[in-house]
Amino acid sequence: MLGKKRRIAVMAEGSFTPLDAKTALGVIRYRPDEVVAVIDSVRAGRTSEDCVGVGGAIPVVTGIEAAAAHDADTLLLGLAPQGGMLPDSWRRVVADALMHGWDVLSGLHVFLSDDPELAALAEAKGCALLDVRRPPARRSIAARRAAYVDALVVLTVGTDCNVGKMTTAIELHRELEDRGVRSAFVATGQTGIFIADQGAAIDAVPADFVAGLVEHLVLEAARDADIVIVEGQGAIHHPAYSGVTLSLMHGACPEVLVLCHQAGRTHVKLMDAGPAPKLRSLTEILRDNERAAGWIRPAPVLALALNTMLLDELEARRAIETTQKLTGVPTVDPVRFGVEAVATELQRRLDERKRRASNE
Amino acid sequence: MLGKKRRIAVMAEGSFTPLDAKTALGVIRYRPDEVVAVIDSVRAGRTSEDCVGVGGAIPVVTGIEAAAAHDADTLLLGLAPQGGMLPDSWRRVVADALMHGWDVLSGLHVFLSDDPELAALAEAKGCALLDVRRPPARRSIAARRAAYVDALVVLTVGTDCNVGKMTTAIELHRELEDRGVRSAFVATGQTGIFIADQGAAIDAVPADFVAGLVEHLVLEAARDADIVIVEGQGAIHHPAYSGVTLSLMHGACPEVLVLCHQAGRTHVKLMDAGPAPKLRSLTEILRDNERAAGWIRPAPVLALALNTMLLDELEARRAIETTQKLTGVPTVDPVRFGVEAVATELQRRLDERKRRASNE
Repeated sequence: MLGKKRRIAVMAEGSFTPLDAKTALGVIRYRPDEVVAVIDSVRAGRTSEDCVGVGGAIPVVTGIEAAAAHDADTLLLGLAPQGGMLPDSWRRVVADALMHGWDVLSGLHVFLSDDPELAALAEAKGCALLDVRRPPARRSIAARRAAYVDALVVLTVGTDCNVGKMTTAIELHRELEDRGVRSAFVATGQTGIFIADQGAAIDAVPADFVAGLVEHLVLEAARDADIVIVEGQGAIHHPAYSGVTLSLMHGACPEVLVLCHQAGRTHVKLMDAGPAPKLRSLTEILRDNERAAGWIRPAPVLALALNTMLLDELEARRAIETTQKLTGVPTVDPVRFGVEAVATELQRRLDERKRRASNE
Repeated sequence: MLGKKRRIAVMAEGSFTPLDAKTALGVIRYRPDEVVAVIDSVRAGRTSEDCVGVGGAIPVVTGIEAAAAHDADTLLLGLAPQGGMLPDSWRRVVADALMHGWDVLSGLHVFLSDDPELAALAEAKGCALLDVRRPPARRSIAARRAAYVDALVVLTVGTDCNVGKMTTAIELHRELEDRGVRSAFVATGQTGIFIADQGAAIDAVPADFVAGLVEHLVLEAARDADIVIVEGQGAIHHPAYSGVTLSLMHGACPEVLVLCHQAGRTHVKLMDAGPAPKLRSLTEILRDNERAAGWIRPAPVLALALNTMLLDELEARRAIETTQKLTGVPTVDPVRFGVEAVATELQRRLDERKRRASNE
């Protein structure tokens, strides 16, 4: 990950659950061979599989010392607290990891390498502090250029944060690659970057340049791919992140959308107490996303990705069926039952487009 | 301006026209007593009034030396190039100004005070480099809090960039103040900050925190005001800036919108060549803005502000009449004919709300 094969201890103190440890879960699901331990003193002694349903026997341990016993050589900050600041207790853990000579990978909004003490310690120990959320220097202004690439651009959107936009994008990308399609995955958030070893955390970029950066990422990805799958962020109905989502949408200029939702989620997740807005109906959210995309380039919702993590299998099948009936849109659970139907439809569109091109 | 009464030379080299010199025009219109000269070698010898229709006899001069002859003590970078970078030729001008012992006020995305050479020169000369676009340290996450303030929150939105969102907001604020209403103006861009001596340039803030910052600005402004007028940015239909606009909308949670448009504008202004998207119809844009606001808090478009700068007076009156008929929404040109009708409607809403509150 990020330059070399690693032995990672994932920090998820007090929060190693399927809903709270988004980054940890993503890294463990897609880079399991590089994770040797998860740090969460509350759940120490259990396995990853036991806590979050993936990661098999990867042990959950109490802290840096215990992770060192598993030959960790890297600490990954596996939680993305809203606001992205570094809790004091975590600061000590980072310092400890550096004292052990480990690199530290961080997806926080606050940059570890800007902290003079941590930076000095890292230098003294010859370790790297890698802040994957640091915005790239590139500053360009979007101008709908991504609407003209030859590749078929797909964007995942969501009814809320943390519903499965990244996972759906990666599952689609992997399924297409397995079928021999030239697919590219564009990571737009810290977890996606850890998994893909490239991309940019667009939510940390000065707002004026977000769409321009996304446009650039899509143009680059489209050079060597027939299908470009862009990882979505936030939700256009989320009071805090709607702007990030719209910049992403209008920078990427997708041809089709995949709308992600968590079965059973009824309210928007907000940071603190106070009345959380109720989620609109899926049909409304679907239509609003198509409209918002259409302000720059029309894009239908091709499929729904329903995250049924909190349901048992029978409930999950029922939820998928109900959702499909309700919306009239093909519905899958990418993690539980795969994305075959969606991949097939994307291939069909790609073939059709190639046929059209060769007829011209 | 920004801490003291100044004698400002406004830099607008090669671009001192009504449509290109947005920041210069705003500062000259609303802080004319502090502007002693405009720098534009192409138009040197003319007056400000002659070039942009405001600013009376303020002279346009060739450069720093000529501005010094008018006892300038401050250079203001009065152009906001898309992308916000510092052209090399401007860099020399900034250094020249510092050599004269002037402060330099900048609204660029690149920060003058981060430039080691300029910073050293400023220090040696005892001058200030004020980068008003530098984001405040505050980083909070929006949660629809602005929907619950007692004040009536008004947001200006636009069909495109540079159509009059800031000007409309300031004209409304001034008209309300003249009537004795406790009004507050929330500046969200560099020009607004120069004029209001406070606010934040939200487009330079990391995308995740834009809505949260706007929310904070509105909560602060609402403490001592009955009406809060928020300066709009960008446009939800603009491929580069739509995300900034939506963050602003959802952070501010306005109760009503004022939609700004430039009469005769048919295409979105993009940075470079390439096909500029056609503007949708005013009716569509109006409805889309109401919808987008409504994802967080319903807000009708109360009025249209039509910028008729490029028309003669008869054409202007016709354009206003036609627009009003077409959309069914009261239409004004804030600069040419004032905002009385809109201010009256806002007062009516305020009175009604007070009546309701006293009846409860």
